[in-house]
Amino acid sequence: MATNPRIVITGTSGRMGQTLIGLIVASEKMTLTGAIERSGHDWIGRDVGEAMGGAPLGVIVTEDVAGAFAQADAVIDFTAPAATIAFAQAAAEAGIVHVIGTTGMTDAEIAALKPHAARATIIRAGNMSLGVNLLTQLTKRVAAALDDDYDIEVIEAHHNQKVDAPSGTALMLGEAAAEGRGVKLTDVSDRGRDGITGARKRGDIGFTAIRGGDIIGEHDVMFAAAGERIILRHVASDRSVFARGALKAALWGQNRKAGAYDMLDVLGLSEPD
Amino acid sequence: MATNPRIVITGTSGRMGQTLIGLIVASEKMTLTGAIERSGHDWIGRDVGEAMGGAPLGVIVTEDVAGAFAQADAVIDFTAPAATIAFAQAAAEAGIVHVIGTTGMTDAEIAALKPHAARATIIRAGNMSLGVNLLTQLTKRVAAALDDDYDIEVIEAHHNQKVDAPSGTALMLGEAAAEGRGVKLTDVSDRGRDGITGARKRGDIGFTAIRGGDIIGEHDVMFAAAGERIILRHVASDRSVFARGALKAALWGQNRKAGAYDMLDVLGLSEPD
Amino acid sequence: MATNPRIVITGTSGRMGQTLIGLIVASEKMTLTGAIERSGHDWIGRDVGEAMGGAPLGVIVTEDVAGAFAQADAVIDFTAPAATIAFAQAAAEAGIVHVIGTTGMTDAEIAALKPHAARATIIRAGNMSLGVNLLTQLTKRVAAALDDDYDIEVIEAHHNQKVDAPSGTALMLGEAAAEGRGVKLTDVSDRGRDGITGARKRGDIGFTAIRGGDIIGEHDVMFAAAGERIILRHVASDRSVFARGALKAALWGQNRKAGAYDMLDVLGLSEPD
Amino acid sequence: MATNPRIVITGTSGRMGQTLIGLIVASEKMTLTGAIERSGHDWIGRDVGEAMGGAPLGVIVTEDVAGAFAQADAVIDFTAPAATIAFAQAAAEAGIVHVIGTTGMTDAEIAALKPHAARATIIRAGNMSLGVNLLTQLTKRVAAALDDDYDIEVIEAHHNQKVDAPSGTALMLGEAAAEGRGVKLTDVSDRGRDGITGARKRGDIGFTAIRGGDIIGEHDVMFAAAGERIILRHVASDRSVFARGALKAALWGQNRKAGAYDMLDVLGLSEPD
Repeated sequence: MATNPRIVITGTSGRMGQTLIGLIVASEKMTLTGAIERSGHDWIGRDVGEAMGGAPLGVIVTEDVAGAFAQADAVIDFTAPAATIAFAQAAAEAGIVHVIGTTGMTDAEIAALKPHAARATIIRAGNMSLGVNLLTQLTKRVAAALDDDYDIEVIEAHHNQKVDAPSGTALMLGEAAAEGRGVKLTDVSDRGRDGITGARKRGDIGFTAIRGGDIIGEHDVMFAAAGERIILRHVASDRSVFARGALKAALWGQNRKAGAYDMLDVLGLSEPD
Repeated sequence: MATNPRIVITGTSGRMGQTLIGLIVASEKMTLTGAIERSGHDWIGRDVGEAMGGAPLGVIVTEDVAGAFAQADAVIDFTAPAATIAFAQAAAEAGIVHVIGTTGMTDAEIAALKPHAARATIIRAGNMSLGVNLLTQLTKRVAAALDDDYDIEVIEAHHNQKVDAPSGTALMLGEAAAEGRGVKLTDVSDRGRDGITGARKRGDIGFTAIRGGDIIGEHDVMFAAAGERIILRHVASDRSVFARGALKAALWGQNRKAGAYDMLDVLGLSEPD
Repeated sequence: MATNPRIVITGTSGRMGQTLIGLIVASEKMTLTGAIERSGHDWIGRDVGEAMGGAPLGVIVTEDVAGAFAQADAVIDFTAPAATIAFAQAAAEAGIVHVIGTTGMTDAEIAALKPHAARATIIRAGNMSLGVNLLTQLTKRVAAALDDDYDIEVIEAHHNQKVDAPSGTALMLGEAAAEGRGVKLTDVSDRGRDGITGARKRGDIGFTAIRGGDIIGEHDVMFAAAGERIILRHVASDRSVFARGALKAALWGQNRKAGAYDMLDVLGLSEPD
Repeated sequence: MATNPRIVITGTSGRMGQTLIGLIVASEKMTLTGAIERSGHDWIGRDVGEAMGGAPLGVIVTEDVAGAFAQADAVIDFTAPAATIAFAQAAAEAGIVHVIGTTGMTDAEIAALKPHAARATIIRAGNMSLGVNLLTQLTKRVAAALDDDYDIEVIEAHHNQKVDAPSGTALMLGEAAAEGRGVKLTDVSDRGRDGITGARKRGDIGFTAIRGGDIIGEHDVMFAAAGERIILRHVASDRSVFARGALKAALWGQNRKAGAYDMLDVLGLSEPD
């Protein structure tokens, strides 16, 4: 009989860490075996269930990464770029699957993960939701089917605590549109529209960022021509959609060949080049 | 040097007929040579440009279908099912392309066109816009990619003069969703939701129809699951988008092998089965 | 020094009951003193915090309504019509504020509350959110400002477990529109649009209900005329918005004169007739 | 028997000029008596109906402003700020109503109209549609009712030829929101959001501008808090909605006391200060 994959969570006390723990505890397909926090955090040494204000779960929050990874099959990691790079090394050494939902990674930071993908399975995505990954693929396809009579705009809305604009997911969608059209996003990107802008430049891909309340994340890709518009829209209404995608990735990664994967691989949506 | 295809319009005095004539006159790729109205209509015998309240165009509105078709390469026809079937016979006899934008045709009426497609090129679509046809294809693909954790709803909005609900285009989108899922639309269709309905049945495809003002046509296909929604949306903002699709079809049909085609063929979007 | 109002919750084990308890425990302005469940429920006799899967809160779930009310200043009640009528009598006897968020009450059931409002403060609303109550008022005002060149449609979307259509809130908005126009909703209501409907009847108020996923509640009131549309839209993204409205009502009701109130009173939005 | 007001149009050959002429000719409540173009324009001296490509209307396009105004009761003017100031002087001298739909006027340009309002009736609005003016008033009211737990965002979409962002109407809505809140828009305006912006500042009013296709004009005012959003939305689907507002203003202005008015006056929506 197969036993459940053993899962470690990083950034345990964060909103996403707690969401992940709740879902793992409720799942019959995986088992929580480790919970990591940074050195000095006041949850260290406490039972993670109690620290979250609930019943004890029998897992003590720890700063001992190597120790936790040695007892696990996968780590799910929504932290920050520097921490994620350190976790990638430890995961490679322990030979466990590393699921990365950390956002805001630069190209250089993503490149720093690469050596570790030679030894372990790394699954990374700017957005872990099934819907957004599907939308990315549709965006590329529609951009390829339509010529630049159709103006492309990427419109996103997020909560008032978000510190950057446009969102990483909006940029990912913009990249997909540019790829579909066979252009480089940096050549056609139109951001921060304000004042006397002149007429819209044909072929541009525009970005707008709406901020307010506790909006979890909404993304529209609009293709607008004379007489008609096509809009591909994604609405995330519950943060757990990202956590669920990460759990799905952790399961999918079991017994997978070492390498760098993304959510399109997990979802079986990746296309031959 | 190639000469322009010669185009005849049916239902000349209607809103779509007049839109088509305006676009043909403005186009350098085709020439208006005929304008048909039903017997007894008061435009018969008048110059079509003058009848429309403008400058003369040198084309006299006529009820003589065979005469007009004999001088033409294509007829564009947005009329009513019975008239369209008669026009199909006349077009097949004249050997000209028949572009059909007539809506509300039953399966039996569509079948009645078939014999004529053996002799002539017939291009028929419930909706002639590029965007709607693309949306139909995306709908099928997304429905195939997602399981029935994702509830499908087709939502449409039209002007207050529309006499049927849901729209033909909404039904076309529903068919595409059902096909993507491998089910029959008639088995899962949920229409006219009102009163004590009970919880939504898993796997159903729901339809809602909004009516008001002069809305030309808006269609959403929503895939809603726990935590996220994907929405594929089309907005027609100018009726000419349908007319332009029809003109594109008339050009595409020139020198084409006899047969029954749709807009996916014209747009190069049709897929191998 | 003022002491905190003491609050009792009914329907404790339900989703709304648990949300209310979480918010009361987190609030510094009120104190949880009672938690009621129906006779025979397996939470009876347990600490409510532990029953919810968390730390103990020192309040035992009980079926003794009179006992719980005797120790309280207000009861917050999101249950079912019959239960709510019984609670209203008990609240009147105990002389405590009764906040009613129960939905689906008929006119007769609402009338049955009336005698109790002579002895106690009753605050009842079909929807407890600030935003929806504000929207209701705007709807009435806009309907009064515009003539019936503007077609009114009420469009709502809810999760796939909802058993009735249109939602109580949609009907409340429809009532407000009818009132603004000086007509009776029952005379102009157009529901379940499907099939050959004929053109939209001037003056009608249309309703459509979208169902899917876990949508908490979205309502649009559209006023559509030739050339323009005004849409008043409310999106609830967190169920706690209803709970927070109820808590606000419980505080507002303290030391208030006996009578029947609604959320417009609580929000200071009610208008002179 | 009352005779129809006699109307002069400026900017005759423009899109709005032609729309106005079409509506006046179709109306039974007013008569077209003059059509002005700038000196040197090739329509000068031609019958305006023929210049528009239709039947003659018996009105010759002229550059003689004083002559045209002397034979009129009102002028409708959608041109440019400098031209509009000159027309205001001529209208005041002729004693006729001046309806101004010209956009992009600065505060100084608006001030330059003032002296003429002492002698004549001037009706000016950044947007002549009934719906937008109503929306402006609702925006002010909702902003006054809600505290700054509700983040305000003004989102607009226009066609790809628009040269400025945000639109004049978006700014008008932002002004209304600021006024409702008792703040100055210039103190709280957040425009051109891009890059590392930091968290949204409480109390800010954000603006975003979407550009694409032939979108005539769509404006959303969003009030977003934790758990809920209210959105006031206007969609213009036909440019004639602005022209119709202007005609309504011209009729309303007949026999009105000299002064400066706006569309809220015309619509009977203006409120006591």
